[in-house]
Amino acid sequence: MFFEGSEKKFELISRGARFRQRGDAYYSALAELAGAKVLSKISSSKLDAYLLSESSLFVSDDCITMLTCGRTSLVRAASFLIDQIGPAQLDFLSYERKNEYFPHQQETDFYKDLEVLQKQIPGKAYRFGFPDEHHLMVFHLDKPFTARGLDCTLEVLMYNLQGPARALFDGGQTLENVRQLSQLGQIFPGFAIDDYLFQPCGYSLNAVKESEYYTIHVTPEEDASYVSFETNVQLGNSMMQTLRNVVEVFQPRSFDLIFFHPEREIPNLDLPPFVRSNFVSQSLSCGFELSFATYVMHTMQARAAVILDESSQTSPANS
Amino acid sequence: MFFEGSEKKFELISRGARFRQRGDAYYSALAELAGAKVLSKISSSKLDAYLLSESSLFVSDDCITMLTCGRTSLVRAASFLIDQIGPAQLDFLSYERKNEYFPHQQETDFYKDLEVLQKQIPGKAYRFGFPDEHHLMVFHLDKPFTARGLDCTLEVLMYNLQGPARALFDGGQTLENVRQLSQLGQIFPGFAIDDYLFQPCGYSLNAVKESEYYTIHVTPEEDASYVSFETNVQLGNSMMQTLRNVVEVFQPRSFDLIFFHPEREIPNLDLPPFVRSNFVSQSLSCGFELSFATYVMHTMQARAAVILDESSQTSPANS
Repeated sequence: MFFEGSEKKFELISRGARFRQRGDAYYSALAELAGAKVLSKISSSKLDAYLLSESSLFVSDDCITMLTCGRTSLVRAASFLIDQIGPAQLDFLSYERKNEYFPHQQETDFYKDLEVLQKQIPGKAYRFGFPDEHHLMVFHLDKPFTARGLDCTLEVLMYNLQGPARALFDGGQTLENVRQLSQLGQIFPGFAIDDYLFQPCGYSLNAVKESEYYTIHVTPEEDASYVSFETNVQLGNSMMQTLRNVVEVFQPRSFDLIFFHPEREIPNLDLPPFVRSNFVSQSLSCGFELSFATYVMHTMQARAAVILDESSQTSPANS
Repeated sequence: MFFEGSEKKFELISRGARFRQRGDAYYSALAELAGAKVLSKISSSKLDAYLLSESSLFVSDDCITMLTCGRTSLVRAASFLIDQIGPAQLDFLSYERKNEYFPHQQETDFYKDLEVLQKQIPGKAYRFGFPDEHHLMVFHLDKPFTARGLDCTLEVLMYNLQGPARALFDGGQTLENVRQLSQLGQIFPGFAIDDYLFQPCGYSLNAVKESEYYTIHVTPEEDASYVSFETNVQLGNSMMQTLRNVVEVFQPRSFDLIFFHPEREIPNLDLPPFVRSNFVSQSLSCGFELSFATYVMHTMQARAAVILDESSQTSPANS
């Protein structure tokens, strides 16, 4: 069985909510609702960052951002929070699912999650990309919202790591070596870092500095390898260089970009031999332009096929 | 609910079997085993071509080729035939599944089918392409085989039709109009044609001439539109032009090529703005080089996202 790296994610904002005061036990229980566990926590002056057994949870006074991978049920955590906060107190909510590697292993699909959320709050749902391509499903609270400043979020989702970086996370390394060789704690200067090397393989990193974060999750399993990088750092003119750096570390065969910005769609990335094969951008009634792009590699030489045997079985045992 | 256009396919050869003598009732029963029905039949001197409610069945004296789409269980038909013919009498067998648009709507996945087939005959299984991309799963009988002459098969699988051709098959047209406007019966000269316009939408065509066939299946549903074109016509130098013609009729956003040839991998297709994003070729122990390539469109402008509502539900009701 492969591990499903693709994350589900929600972000909700309730101004004046003082979310940090709810404390660690509250967020441990929240993680468990989704089927994950809190492994560790770091904090900046404005942000608590929980590293989870399946991805990450960031809590500031008025915002909660949670992402979980594997076979977790993030919708349960989102639904619980909506009830706890009260739908009328929500200023913003988005709930995302990427198309999964192995959708038949998931407890629910996006449409089932939608049934839950739409009973609680009025919202709109979109699909970014055609069903046969990499695509993003998004639900958001249908309520006018004005982001503070240049509130934007960039996600880089990388598939099928081709370079030597994959082996670094594939077991047998010490955490010290992984830190030293990957340099993932140095992507931006001055961040506090919390990272974790999973057994038998996998790596997660949370980084915070005041109200900024970045987070990286590596699923190194061959044939379904995946890395997500997400940040709310305001990249401005350095965005293209940051993207190039991240892609060059992991050398994926393909990657997706997801960009929330109050006004702008994500610019084109000039990075041969990658070409953009999918590009969808939509102005949302919750105050953001959301854009999604997929880059694939222009392929010249044929590879050999992958031989399938018992160990490549991807069906859940109970299907 | 969308209709799953992606086909499952098997081909089996047993020299001296005289398959055509088994008669229409036998093949009607075979189609029903897979969950399909025979709608009509045409014949050439060497080939019977059955048009099915879900795709096609071709029978010559020593070869049976069957492809079915939707939620059919083609593996049942394959398994039945293996038993009937006797594993030792088989000279060649291949069983293919393309990755589906909606895998969670299928009764089985490829691995479950493999469990059935591997109990009956010794074989090898391969995946052509990574799990997140368009990819092909193939099982074949592990037995040396020498094809007669230049026995090759080309499949062109087209996704997300962008041009006016899609509307032609989307209901409301007469069969006469579809024939006239699509010109699909004139791709190669001198073939007998059998075609069918489905209600509320969809179109299938079988064409035969002596031992040659071509077949086309159109699933026009918006957002999951799909066309397959398959032929055993020996295209030689005209292959590239034939491919261009087919792609230009349907104007897909992406397409896959599958090519069985005794020796050669499929050549590169120069057709901007398409670029090849996946290319896998494997020499099989059953005497064929099998190659698989995916072409996607280099995308410049952003599209709007697709709004999801009740009608975009893709989950089966009972999931």
